Amino acid sequence: MPHIALHNDAPGITGLFQYRPETARPLRELSEVLLRGPNTLTRGERELIAAHVSTRNHCRFCALSHGASAAAQLPDGMPLVEQVHADVDSAPVSAKLRALLHLADAVRRDGRAVMQADVEAARAAGASDLEIHDTVLIAAAFSMYNRYVDGLATIAPDDPAAYAKMAERIVGTGYLPG
Amino acid sequence: MPHIALHNDAPGITGLFQYRPETARPLRELSEVLLRGPNTLTRGERELIAAHVSTRNHCRFCALSHGASAAAQLPDGMPLVEQVHADVDSAPVSAKLRALLHLADAVRRDGRAVMQADVEAARAAGASDLEIHDTVLIAAAFSMYNRYVDGLATIAPDDPAAYAKMAERIVGTGYLPG
Repeated sequence: MPHIALHNDAPGITGLFQYRPETARPLRELSEVLLRGPNTLTRGERELIAAHVSTRNHCRFCALSHGASAAAQLPDGMPLVEQVHADVDSAPVSAKLRALLHLADAVRRDGRAVMQADVEAARAAGASDLEIHDTVLIAAAFSMYNRYVDGLATIAPDDPAAYAKMAERIVGTGYLPG
Repeated sequence: MPHIALHNDAPGITGLFQYRPETARPLRELSEVLLRGPNTLTRGERELIAAHVSTRNHCRFCALSHGASAAAQLPDGMPLVEQVHADVDSAPVSAKLRALLHLADAVRRDGRAVMQADVEAARAAGASDLEIHDTVLIAAAFSMYNRYVDGLATIAPDDPAAYAKMAERIVGTGYLPG
């Protein structure tokens, strides 16, 4: 049960968005720009970074919802998402995406944990400055969303179909209110 | 030196805002709503929560800039800010603000670190559900801003006068671009 009375039964962050529309607006817009705006990283790759950070932070709602969105937008679908969560180093992703996933995990632990070597590794694998910037900000943003969702003890559905349905909506129309 | 070429010499998050205006827009709006929008917590109290989370995360730029904004908007100014950073339990703040500062610190550590008892303590000290919500989101948001600022190794000025000047601008006109 959520720590505060949300007066709605929407799961995870969607219940918080209904509760406080004033803060929902910039939070939704940030997700839209970061995960779906014009970018040399695909939408699937960016959702995968978000899902990976959320998985490592043990935020069930965010991990499952963004994992479903990543799976829906990556050619190799959910098996790839699961391989990345199990072991980034052996998962069949590009060298660039692997380096960005490692960079994201450093940000997740602590901004000061990012070493020049992490950034150089991403650059050597072909990442642009903007891709490095956006990866750092995606990891930082999910360090926020994860804490927001779990800090208020929101509900995470058990049924995987619930997340697949959320992903379908996100893939179709995005994060801004319809 | 920042990890990527920002093509400007603005300090901390302001250099990142200039580099990537598309993400700056929702990030600025989130700060404006959370720290300056209509609220039963004063602007000084909300800046103090932001400064406290940033101090505990060792994010120098955020700690000093929001510490200066808190000091400028609290009757007891910088001495109070420093007492809170040194020891929340003995600092001369209200029982409600003390409980919210403890709640914020739990969120900062991990969303799952928030115990029902932390929320009950805040409520028993007079905090409303909305104040609890906003405290959780302020702490979560600064878990993002701190990682963004430090994960890209932005510049933090040494001169305290630089932060006092930033605070003067924030107190006067807020976080949205002028």
